[in-house]
Amino acid sequence: MDAIDLTSRLIRCPSVTPDEGGALVLLEQVLSAAGFACTRVDRGGVSNLFARWGARGANKSFGFNGHTDVVPVGDAAAWTHDPFGAEVVDGVMYGRGATDMKSGVAAFVAAAVDFVTTTPPDGAVVITITGDEEGPSVDGTVALLDWMVSNGEKMSHCLVGEPTCPNEMGEMMKIGRRGSLTAWFTAEGVQGHSAYPHRARNPMSALVKLLARIDRPLDEGTAHFDASTLAITTVDCGNPATNVIPAKGQATVNIRFNDAHSGASLTEWLRGEAAAVEAETGVKIGVRVNISGESFVTAPGAFTELVARSVEAETGRRPVASTSGGTSDARFVKDHCPVVEFGLVGRTMHQVDECVPVAQIAQLQAIYGRILRDYFA
Amino acid sequence: MDAIDLTSRLIRCPSVTPDEGGALVLLEQVLSAAGFACTRVDRGGVSNLFARWGARGANKSFGFNGHTDVVPVGDAAAWTHDPFGAEVVDGVMYGRGATDMKSGVAAFVAAAVDFVTTTPPDGAVVITITGDEEGPSVDGTVALLDWMVSNGEKMSHCLVGEPTCPNEMGEMMKIGRRGSLTAWFTAEGVQGHSAYPHRARNPMSALVKLLARIDRPLDEGTAHFDASTLAITTVDCGNPATNVIPAKGQATVNIRFNDAHSGASLTEWLRGEAAAVEAETGVKIGVRVNISGESFVTAPGAFTELVARSVEAETGRRPVASTSGGTSDARFVKDHCPVVEFGLVGRTMHQVDECVPVAQIAQLQAIYGRILRDYFA
Ligand SMILES: [Zn+2]
Ligand SMILES: [Zn+2]
Repeated sequence: MDAIDLTSRLIRCPSVTPDEGGALVLLEQVLSAAGFACTRVDRGGVSNLFARWGARGANKSFGFNGHTDVVPVGDAAAWTHDPFGAEVVDGVMYGRGATDMKSGVAAFVAAAVDFVTTTPPDGAVVITITGDEEGPSVDGTVALLDWMVSNGEKMSHCLVGEPTCPNEMGEMMKIGRRGSLTAWFTAEGVQGHSAYPHRARNPMSALVKLLARIDRPLDEGTAHFDASTLAITTVDCGNPATNVIPAKGQATVNIRFNDAHSGASLTEWLRGEAAAVEAETGVKIGVRVNISGESFVTAPGAFTELVARSVEAETGRRPVASTSGGTSDARFVKDHCPVVEFGLVGRTMHQVDECVPVAQIAQLQAIYGRILRDYFA
Repeated sequence: MDAIDLTSRLIRCPSVTPDEGGALVLLEQVLSAAGFACTRVDRGGVSNLFARWGARGANKSFGFNGHTDVVPVGDAAAWTHDPFGAEVVDGVMYGRGATDMKSGVAAFVAAAVDFVTTTPPDGAVVITITGDEEGPSVDGTVALLDWMVSNGEKMSHCLVGEPTCPNEMGEMMKIGRRGSLTAWFTAEGVQGHSAYPHRARNPMSALVKLLARIDRPLDEGTAHFDASTLAITTVDCGNPATNVIPAKGQATVNIRFNDAHSGASLTEWLRGEAAAVEAETGVKIGVRVNISGESFVTAPGAFTELVARSVEAETGRRPVASTSGGTSDARFVKDHCPVVEFGLVGRTMHQVDECVPVAQIAQLQAIYGRILRDYFA
């Protein structure tokens, strides 16, 4: 099966989150035709596709995970190619989702179809594809995994096909991700006149004290992770009067954290710092925290080695095992089985004129095929 | 002359800044009738009145300064008395300007008229009244002082009749004021993704660093002054995206400073701190400063003692010589002659149901009259 052709057909489906756009319908047809048992696992307005070749709940069951939804076109006038046209110019295919990640989905679907139809394995191949990775991600891969648990479906290992290579094909795979947490601080003081700060309780002064305390290196990195980072994303008050100390203010920070921390430990730390500043200043500080993902790592071992070896065999490059970057649906999969991410070069993702060299799609298909053969060998 | 009656007539003039409202016209009539040479010194849409009894440029020339403009009524429905009615209930007169400072103006006008008509002094009595003290204060007392210089008019000493007593009549006079300065900081960094703060330059992080450095005690006070104070009045960014490090942010601080500093020394300090943070963070920090007044003090001596003695003789209280509070037009007068401020209890100024006990007006008139007699004795 030709992954390049399948990529172009997927790009022509306008599947901007949360629209399915025909992409999952197309994949269900392709996979069913190859003997996969397919089930649409839609939830909360989100379309998802589950497909299994082989026996339900097989002990040896290799999984692929990906998404067909794409981010919006953005500045349509700035595109030099139809964002849903899949035009190929000088060996490069253009379109929204060309790298993130219709090419990845096409590559693993084509590799899986070729594999099960030519050398039927002793085990199962499971494919989970969501239509909501770029959106809230509440009813996407999570819905698929919930449904699998309820229905006795299993993956013993899983590969997520997101783009993972910064510049050159094959240079990086991801064996985990840092966690992500957002904290919103609201400071409520006592308004007053600028000439008499001692009669007021300045919420901005308290927020500055708090932010200065927490805006610092959180660690120096761990065995598999870069250092955790904290970013102040906004501070707001909106007081136009320079002779008035305001009553209220707010600030937001986003933390990307490694396995030296957890969402709970960081929440406790932030609340403790806020309480200390509250005690020092008399300004009431509220803390609301949203943990969008805990850090996780698939410890280097047989599975990561299998992926690395396959990449090296096809590209001549041994991929670095990284945990850098934002979040992906691997953060949900890791609760069910060991998970590794490997895909093509993601440089143009989410940008105008997103594109992929077609040779890279073929190479990715070859890598995924080799992983399947080695896994079941 | 009855200062209480004059206060009520002034309150009935709706002289909300910058409207003259008939107040200066009334005072010009009253003063002219008593032999004062009056000149309207209007500038930039602001009405001001200059009045002199005695010879122009006399060596011994006592000045009074005040304003007839008032702040807006505010929540009109919340008033229990007509803000421009000057109703007297149980010995208390209600109305906008009752304390700030139509009563003060009426008291020194009545005292001056009585004084020059009963015991004509060897010297001059100069009265300057502006219609823009509550507004921008650019074309008010400054215009009067400019005009005086151009026209050979002089004051050898001046008393500003603003309310100065916190709670009890006679307890405080002001012999100076702290300076006031506002600084606006703009931080321009490099936008980026929250997961990669090292690739961005966070303007909010830089502002927090800067504000944490400068938000501290500036001194411990000096011989005649309380400690200088700094208030962060606002910090703003307006970035709604928690996964984005913003490109720009801004903050404002207001400093009230004593004679350990000057507007220039503080500006230099703020620019130095901003430059240090800019060097540390790579975030470009712009600093714009407005010095609305330098600190000043009329050193305790014969003049302050004369005022204190008069207050004590009429009230039984010896006034504390303070430099507390916001700014007043004394900050302009001090460049021309020694200036002291004394007036009644200012508790209700700028509030709903602003009011003054009529007995306090009579007492203030008596104090001003005694000051004039002692000054020319
Ligand atoms: Zn993606
Ligand atoms: Zn006033």
